[in-house]
Order: sequence, then C-alpha cells, then structure tokens
Amino acid sequence: MTRVGLIGFGYWGPNLARNIAETPGLSLAAVADARPDRLDVVARRHPGAACLTDARELIARADIDAVVVATPLTTHFALASESLEHDKHVLVEKPLASTAAECEALGQLAAKRGLCLMVDHTFVYTGAVRKMKRLIDAGELGALLYLDSVRINLGLFQHDSNVVWDLAPHDLAIVDYLIEERPTAVSASGSMPAGYHQESIAYITMHFGNGFLAHLHVNWLAPVKIRQMLIGGLQKMLTYDDMEPSEKVRVYDKGVDFDPGDDEKRRQLLVSYRAGDMYAPQLDRREALNGVTAEFCQAIQERREPLTGAAAGTRVVRVLEAAERSLRNEGRRIQL
Amino acid sequence: MTRVGLIGFGYWGPNLARNIAETPGLSLAAVADARPDRLDVVARRHPGAACLTDARELIARADIDAVVVATPLTTHFALASESLEHDKHVLVEKPLASTAAECEALGQLAAKRGLCLMVDHTFVYTGAVRKMKRLIDAGELGALLYLDSVRINLGLFQHDSNVVWDLAPHDLAIVDYLIEERPTAVSASGSMPAGYHQESIAYITMHFGNGFLAHLHVNWLAPVKIRQMLIGGLQKMLTYDDMEPSEKVRVYDKGVDFDPGDDEKRRQLLVSYRAGDMYAPQLDRREALNGVTAEFCQAIQERREPLTGAAAGTRVVRVLEAAERSLRNEGRRIQL
Amino acid sequence: MTRVGLIGFGYWGPNLARNIAETPGLSLAAVADARPDRLDVVARRHPGAACLTDARELIARADIDAVVVATPLTTHFALASESLEHDKHVLVEKPLASTAAECEALGQLAAKRGLCLMVDHTFVYTGAVRKMKRLIDAGELGALLYLDSVRINLGLFQHDSNVVWDLAPHDLAIVDYLIEERPTAVSASGSMPAGYHQESIAYITMHFGNGFLAHLHVNWLAPVKIRQMLIGGLQKMLTYDDMEPSEKVRVYDKGVDFDPGDDEKRRQLLVSYRAGDMYAPQLDRREALNGVTAEFCQAIQERREPLTGAAAGTRVVRVLEAAERSLRNEGRRIQL
Amino acid sequence: MTRVGLIGFGYWGPNLARNIAETPGLSLAAVADARPDRLDVVARRHPGAACLTDARELIARADIDAVVVATPLTTHFALASESLEHDKHVLVEKPLASTAAECEALGQLAAKRGLCLMVDHTFVYTGAVRKMKRLIDAGELGALLYLDSVRINLGLFQHDSNVVWDLAPHDLAIVDYLIEERPTAVSASGSMPAGYHQESIAYITMHFGNGFLAHLHVNWLAPVKIRQMLIGGLQKMLTYDDMEPSEKVRVYDKGVDFDPGDDEKRRQLLVSYRAGDMYAPQLDRREALNGVTAEFCQAIQERREPLTGAAAGTRVVRVLEAAERSLRNEGRRIQL
Repeated sequence: MTRVGLIGFGYWGPNLARNIAETPGLSLAAVADARPDRLDVVARRHPGAACLTDARELIARADIDAVVVATPLTTHFALASESLEHDKHVLVEKPLASTAAECEALGQLAAKRGLCLMVDHTFVYTGAVRKMKRLIDAGELGALLYLDSVRINLGLFQHDSNVVWDLAPHDLAIVDYLIEERPTAVSASGSMPAGYHQESIAYITMHFGNGFLAHLHVNWLAPVKIRQMLIGGLQKMLTYDDMEPSEKVRVYDKGVDFDPGDDEKRRQLLVSYRAGDMYAPQLDRREALNGVTAEFCQAIQERREPLTGAAAGTRVVRVLEAAERSLRNEGRRIQL
Repeated sequence: MTRVGLIGFGYWGPNLARNIAETPGLSLAAVADARPDRLDVVARRHPGAACLTDARELIARADIDAVVVATPLTTHFALASESLEHDKHVLVEKPLASTAAECEALGQLAAKRGLCLMVDHTFVYTGAVRKMKRLIDAGELGALLYLDSVRINLGLFQHDSNVVWDLAPHDLAIVDYLIEERPTAVSASGSMPAGYHQESIAYITMHFGNGFLAHLHVNWLAPVKIRQMLIGGLQKMLTYDDMEPSEKVRVYDKGVDFDPGDDEKRRQLLVSYRAGDMYAPQLDRREALNGVTAEFCQAIQERREPLTGAAAGTRVVRVLEAAERSLRNEGRRIQL
Repeated sequence: MTRVGLIGFGYWGPNLARNIAETPGLSLAAVADARPDRLDVVARRHPGAACLTDARELIARADIDAVVVATPLTTHFALASESLEHDKHVLVEKPLASTAAECEALGQLAAKRGLCLMVDHTFVYTGAVRKMKRLIDAGELGALLYLDSVRINLGLFQHDSNVVWDLAPHDLAIVDYLIEERPTAVSASGSMPAGYHQESIAYITMHFGNGFLAHLHVNWLAPVKIRQMLIGGLQKMLTYDDMEPSEKVRVYDKGVDFDPGDDEKRRQLLVSYRAGDMYAPQLDRREALNGVTAEFCQAIQERREPLTGAAAGTRVVRVLEAAERSLRNEGRRIQL
Repeated sequence: MTRVGLIGFGYWGPNLARNIAETPGLSLAAVADARPDRLDVVARRHPGAACLTDARELIARADIDAVVVATPLTTHFALASESLEHDKHVLVEKPLASTAAECEALGQLAAKRGLCLMVDHTFVYTGAVRKMKRLIDAGELGALLYLDSVRINLGLFQHDSNVVWDLAPHDLAIVDYLIEERPTAVSASGSMPAGYHQESIAYITMHFGNGFLAHLHVNWLAPVKIRQMLIGGLQKMLTYDDMEPSEKVRVYDKGVDFDPGDDEKRRQLLVSYRAGDMYAPQLDRREALNGVTAEFCQAIQERREPLTGAAAGTRVVRVLEAAERSLRNEGRRIQL
C-alpha cells in the first residue's frame, strides 16, 4: 500500500483526494493546506487522513511514501524537488513546472533516486483521447493535416498566470500524446482586457516539420463553454466534443483525393471528395482522474516510467515557454 | 428600370440572377457565360434574358445599364474596369479584385465617371449581422475585447486561390462592417495537404491599435460545417451561429469587472463575474442577397455610394493581401 | 412528354410547379388559381404555362395529360374525380381526400379508366426515409417495439382542418411506408386554444396486433420546430431528425436482451444491455419532391401503380378518420 | 441537530447520504442496507454513521430522530408507517407509496402524531422548475394550453414496476407543482418488449377541466437521453431541457391571437402570430437534492408541512394508479 500525502486542497485537490482514496493500492494518509477552513472539509470527508497546515511537514513525514502536489504553478518545482529529496514518489498537477529547465531538473532528480515522477495530464486518461490515439495509430485517419482545438468559457481569472498557462496544458498534453511527430516551432497571439495584466484570450499555433499544423484557442472570457477538437486526416476526419454527454468522438468518412492528372496542358489537379458514413465509437466512461491515480500507483509498484512522466511534462512546458515568448515578441515564430 | 447584365452563371450567378429578377427597379436583361450548358439553364429559368457566350459583347450592349460580375477572382478587375469604361454601374462578387491597387483603381474610375461600384459583401446584408451592428453601436457589449470566427466545412477546393481568398472575405467584410476601428497589422498561418498547392486551412489574426483582436479560422477540409462567431465585450458577449435555423444571435449578460483594489500590499486585482440572462433577438429573415441587389438598385437611383462600395472592398482586399504575405513569410506580422 | 396542369399556386403549389418544370418527361402546360396575384407570379416564373382562373377550364383542356391538385383538402375529391373523368392522370396533395370512402372511389375510378392516381406523400421520397426502410427491411433493428414521432412548430392555423389533418399525414405516410404490419386501432387526444374551433395540438396512438406501438405528437403552437422520430428495435434503435443539416438518421447499436433465467425460484428475468457504436449513414440528398414528380412521370409512362397510390392514400386517410372519431369520443380506442 | 437514519444505499441512497451529511441541522447517524458490500461503502464514505443490516433495528433506535426511506417502492408504506409509529419524521423516495390509500394513511398517521412526512419530489427543488413556477404564477405565459414532457433513455429495467411508476413520478410531481388546476381524468397507452412483463414505454395524458392538457412520454428503451418539457401559453411559451448544461429554461415571446373579426359573412377567425425574442433566465444552480434535505430539516424545525408533503405525494400516486388502470383497460380515460 502506497501512503499518499496531498498538498493543496483548493479546486482540484478534492478530486485528487477522492480518487486517491478510491484507488486500490493507494491510501490518503495526509493532506496539507494553509487554510484551516479547507482542512475542516478534509476532516469531514477523509477522517482517516492527517491534516497539516505546513507542506514541508507533510513532505518530511516518515509515514508518507508519495506526495501529490496540487498547488499554484509557482510552487511546483520547490515542493516536487523537496519531496524527491525526501525519497517520495511525486505526482504534480499540470503543468509540471514553470520552466522546461525545472522540469528537466525534476526528471533527473527522480531518475537518480529511482523514484516515480508523474504529471497529471488528466485528458490523456480519458476514454475519448485513448480512443483517438488508437484510431490515429491504426492509420484510420490517413496522413494527418491539422489538429484544431477550442477550449473556452467564462473562466476564473488566475492572478499568477495567463490563460495560456492555465488552459493550454490540457491541449498540449493531448497533442503530445496523440501526435508522434514533435513540433518544431510555436507562435502565439493574445489579448488582455483593459485594466488587467494577463492575457485572457490566446491563440497558439504549433508548426511541425511535415506540414502538420496544430492550433489552440484558449479563452477565459467566452460566453459559452466549448471544448471541441477537430483532427483532419486525408482518409478520415474526427471531432471530439467533450461537452457531449455521449458520442464525444465522431469519425467521419470524409476526405479528399488529389490526382495529378495526365493532361500536361491543363496542369490541373483533379480533386475528388468522399463523404460517407459517420460513426461514434463507444468510449470507456470511467473517470479520467481515476486512471491518473491508478497509473501513478502501478508505475510505483512496477518501478517503471509512468505514461505521463517527466519527458511528457517537459515537452508540454517547453511549448508553453515558447508560446509565452512569442506573445512577448509580436507573435514571432519561436523555434523549439 | 435599371437593365442588368450578369457575367458568370456558375455557383453564385444563379442566385444573383434570381434576386435581380425579383428586385423592383432591376430587370435581368442579359447573361453571359462561356459554357453553353449553363446558358441552357438561363434560357429555361429566365426566358426574357439574352444569352451570350462573350462577356465583352454583354458589356458593350447599349440596352444594359449595369453589369454584375460573378466570375473567378482573376477576371474581376478586367471585367469591372471595362464595364465602367462602357459607363455601366458595376456590382462585383467578393472579393472586389485581386489586389488593393486594383480595387483603388476601380474605385477611382467609378468616381470619375459618376458610376456606382459595389462589392457583394453578402453577410453585411443579413438580419443577423445588421442586428449585431446595432447592438455594438448602441454600446450594449461595452468595450470590445475580441472577435473570433470559425468558417469551416468540407468545401470545394479552388484551383486559382487558397482558402483565405475563398472564405475569409466573408468574415473580413463582417469585421469591416461591425468594427469601427481599423486593423493595424495582420498575421496568418496555414497548411496545405501533401500533393496540393494551395492552403486548405488557415488562421488569420488581425491586430488593432486598442488591443482588440480578431481571429479567423477558415478551412476547406473540416468534417463538419461550422459558421460561428463570438464577440466578447466587457459588458456583454454574443454568439452568432449561422447554422442555427433560428436564434442565430444570442446575447449573454456575462462579463468581468476589474477592481484595482485599495490594498497596496497585496497588489491584487479583484475580478468579479456577472452571469445573467441570455436572450436571442428576433431577426429580419429576408434573404441577404435580396438586400444586396436592392442596395445596388437604390444606390444607382439615388446616385450615392453603396453601403459596401469601393472603400469597403479595398479594405477587405488589403487584409487579404497582408494575410497572403504573412503566409509566405512564416506568419510574420504584416503592418497595414 | 406528359403535359401537366397544376391547380393551386398557394404554399405548396410553387414547389410542385418548379419540380414539374425540371422533371424530364413532364412539362408545365397550365396553372389555375382563382387569385390574380398568384397568376402574376406564375407568369413571371413560368412564362410557358397558360394561366387560368378556373380549375374546371384547366381540367377540360385537351392539351393537358395530367392534373396536379394542390388545393385545400375539401376540394380534393371533386377536382380529382373530375380530372379522372376527363381522362387525366392525377397527382393529389396529401391527404388524398377527406374520407376513406372518397379515396376508395377515386382509386376505383382511376383503375377503371386505366389512369395513374398518386398522392404526394413527400417524405416517402426522402433519402432519410428510404434509408430507414432499407435498414428495417434488412432486419438491422430486430423486432420493432415502437415508433415515436414529434412534428411541432409555431405553424399556420388552418381554418378548415385541425392539426391532425394538417401535420399527421406526413407521419402516417412514413409509418405506412416503413411498417409492414397494419394498425388495428387508433386513439387520439387533443386540445384547442380558448376561442378557437380546431385542435392545435394532438397526440395520436396507433396500436398494432403484434404489440408494436406508433405514437405521434403534432402541434401548431410550439415555440420550437422539432421534427424527430425514434424507432426502437430490440437489436438496434434509430433516430431521424429532419432538422439536422446532415446526419439526419443515426443508428444506435443499443438494445436489451431478456434471458428468462433458469432459477425457477427467483422467477426473475435477466436483462442485459448493449451500448455500442452509433453510426450515421450517408443519405441521398436529392429533393424529395423531385422524387415525387419523377415517380408520377414514370408510373404514367410504365402504366403501373405509383409507389404512393390510392391504396396508401386510403390507408392514411382511414387512420385520420379514426383519429378524428377518437378525438370526438374522449380518446376512445377506435378499431380499424 | 436532527439525527437521520437512512434505509437503502442502492442507486439514490448515496446521494441522499451525501446531502444529509452536508445539510446544516442534519447529521447522518445510521444507514441500513441488507447488502454487506453496500455497508462497506458507507463505512468508507461516512465513518461516523452506524451501519446496520436490519431496517427495523434502525427505525427502533433511540438516537435517530428521522428516517429517510430509499428502498424499492413496495416497501415504502411498511417502512414509513413503522417509522412514524416510532415517532420518527420521515422522508420517502418518490413515489410516496404504492397506492393513494397508503399515501393517505401515512399522511393521517403523521398528522395525528405531529410528525413531518415528506416525499422526495426532487425536481420541484431545481432552479429550473422554481423559475418556471415563478413565470407561470406571474402570468407571463398567459392562459396555459398544454404541457408536454419527454423523459426517455436506455434505462434500467425494474423488475417490480413498469416505466410509468419509475419515471413518470418526476413529471407528475413537476406538473403538480406548476399547475394550480388539478387533473380530472387520465389515460395511458404503453407497450412491453416481447418476453418482458412490464411496460418499457408509455404515454400518459392528463385532462383538465379547463381544456389544459398534459402529456408525458416515458421510455426505458430509447437510444438517446431526452429530458425535455414544453409549456404552451397563449402569451408566451417555454422549453425546459434538463440535458442543457446551461440555459435549461428558454422563454419564447411567441404566441397566437384570435380575433373573432367583425365580418359576419365570412365568419372567419383572424389568427395573428407573434414571434419575438427568446430569453434564457439565469437559474439557481444549487443541487436539487440539497434543497430536499434542507426543506426536510426546516419543516421539522418549524413544525410545518413540507413543500412536498403527504398531499402532493398522494396526488401524484393517484395519477399513477389511474394511469395503471388505463393501461390495463385499453387506454380508457379514467376519471380522478
């Protein structure tokens, strides 16, 4: 049984606590949060867990084997590295850390000490994204041309980060998981409301060597909640609408064929269209976060790299850094 | 009665012909198309119109007062300028011409000869866009922060232009009509399928001096048809979904207020959210193209500039040119 | 070439006129309507057709081979029988006539004179309904349990008929076409707004010998337009949403299996559920009314019974009569 | 503090337990369920609650002030009456009991002993239904013509009851709450799959003295989940779509006016249509079940009748009984 200490019981912490408690092989041994009212809630819901106001104290406890970090981004590196140094396995809320350099340092520390370091890229553990991965890997979509993602709603403004660092990690983690090829350059544009100091809307474009294009729209100031992804392949295309109660993934037998033609004089491509059936595969409906805690538990037991480990966490943060740099440089394309 | 000659009876021409025929004050006197099978259709539907295979012959006819140009983009300038030189009023399919310089030349020629020159920015004549204009002008949305438009579907690949020149004119015309301020710079990214020579997907970002941002996603290779626009203001926000059979425009009483706060030490903004009712105003449901032909007719009669004249047509093409240049320069931001 | 005379140029007549004109093998020779302003429209759109104010005159013309009746229901029988007596083939707007007895009389008259008598059950000619028919006939849904149809909107109140006679013929024609078995009894309930003399909302239930149930909701006073049908089979189920721009028909691999079980004492059924993929077959998108006029033309040429002839028209009216009787008798179940 | 004992920890029990635990003024003192594995879950989630396998034992405990019954319908009467006889306040899962006579007996017993008896008509406590009630009471819809409700999905077949007793109580409770007038008669039709002994689909029509009509469609064997209600008034109409994540209630400024006209000869009504704006009021989004447990707590404290007490529970069961009788009598209209 891996005894887990959770740091941070704000927005996401309660979900992590519940899933840790319900994952066989894990037990929720302690929770740390500086706010007494949050610890009251912990005491009511998880009477077996020790309640602490000091994260350092939690990290130092001998009856803790693993630490889960669900605190603001700026604290990730310090808490994770201190935990690793206390020989605890670590699961960190996305994004892994504030810079790619920090991510790499954490990865090296974990590797040196033989500990499990994992980042909570939740969407990678959804039935929808898993299904999309299988479809792409099986070649069902054919050569991929683009991925377009929209993740917008009237969201909570964060004081210590802009919408890119808040929402885009979800999409970047999905792209990182689905697309074998790695991006070569990133550009971004955004805007902040008058009187505010952080972008509340941003567009990120990821360029790939083979012509594939990934584009993200993230927005804290939208009147409607949209969570939609399109992936276009030359054979088939798919949509992923996370707001649909069922049939989240739809595969369209639509595509285009290009025939260079033999008529030299017309030098004209013949474009032919296919528009066939659509189907929506049945998806695994289990809670994604349960997959996260289960993977953390198993990776520890099997002493192996988790599916979303330091490498994936670093790649996502590297794109975030580049997007941030592009935002500060008039949308210039930043090479990775 | 203004006697109209129509050049081009392909995809859009038949709609123009029908609306010309049904507009009081206009009559469809002649149609020119090089393809005999298209003229057969003309003869069946519009028995009163002369059928010609030669556009020049149509332009030269004395019994024609106005010419409507519904041919591929590369021919717009030549046909429109020749028509003006024959003292015909001219209505041109969007976009007005291939370059801003051509647009300006056409505008000057029309002004010199006292003729009406109009571009068919159809969406400007929809009940939905008209309603949005009134809402924005009345200040109901408050200070505008962004406009986001998605115009995608499995569309017909054009051999002589990319998706930017094909689809974006619609959105640029809407932005030009709705937003008083003019863009100062444009950037664009896109991708073309392997084996094809034109972008089939593109993203265009328009930057404005006051921080406002407009972003367009145009795509010929999408599995679903989406025609959705979001406009975010600090007071209210709206959505415009052209695929909705009714309630195309929805106004959300949602917004964010920023209070700088008086606590110097915390240096923290207080963000407060409003989430009130939504309403969908009743819209004028008349066919937009009918508004186009009616405006052409009235502008001729009243010897005035049409709502979408050479100035608007030039501004739209100037953005298209900049987007094209950005596409060829790694998405660099092009100053206007 | 079959020369067609059309009687009635109101709401549906113009659509019939257009499709007659565009169907090879048919020509629109004359149109009769008592209202001069409607004939003005005819003259503009169909300059080749004679315009008459008197339907009898049209029926009597020697240069007419077939008559299409698009007038109010109460006139169907007289116009259709007079046309047949003048040896004209006849296509009648739905429903065929006001009573099943009238329908049968028309059928006998047409048979005796060797003429084609057809009723315009438009939906039977849609790609969606055709596809559903093929799926059902192929046994893909398994044993059918129910059909549920909702056809509601803010509709035009008819002075001479209630919502049952106005809207339900569409659904009854679809049921008649899709379901091999015939209904054995009908019941109906409805309501009329205070101050009005016709039901504006009604529910019709059709009972079948094998336990199958068909239920229709028709409504002129609904705030939203819904055109949705569900068909439940034990193997699969489908939905047909006519308001969807594409994917109108969706087939769900969902169902229930009943296992009587072997445990006599518990006497309990084991119910197991299947919830698999959904798919939306590609549909023929041609205009349904074009299929109607084409079938009329071919049935005349081939001297055969049309797909929706007197028999289908009579069956539909028989259910309408029974529903009307049930409405007048407190919803009593009327045997057919 | 009212100490609550919960009987039944199956599908709905866990939700009740959670809300009891989180309602100030209530504490979850004990849970009874015959299945040890369910009690294991209770022990993990509610460590403070006593776990019992015998409901009678729970009812008899002196440290329990109130009993919540979340067991199959057939046990409601026995458990509720025994609880009342032990001087416990009682909250019963819907429907209150198997017959109206049982409901009345429970009501009388509670009244005699001065105890609170409440039925969990959950939907009455939703923000959506509360808002609809306010709109109707304020006369915003004008004279009501109909209420149409569809509550369908691929649902769990119940062995001891048909779909009417399982799903319709929700809608009947809403109708009972929204509509001041009481139904005078009920009719119902349904069907059961071959090999099964309970209706899996049913239609219920409620007739009212003033011409108002309420119609329910309940279905366990539908491929899609629909939870939609329409309410038509002569002034305005509304839709209530419980599957919408937001904007569940939409109010349409649509209606019809009937003008008897002054032209005696034409004896024709003039019908005029209004089609104005639609709006979606902001709704209270608190969990409905929390409103249920809060109302139970307050009614006990204030020694008053709860909003959904014995009277409402009896009225709902009376309609269920009538619907059942109609189902067994060929859909005959049963007077209430």
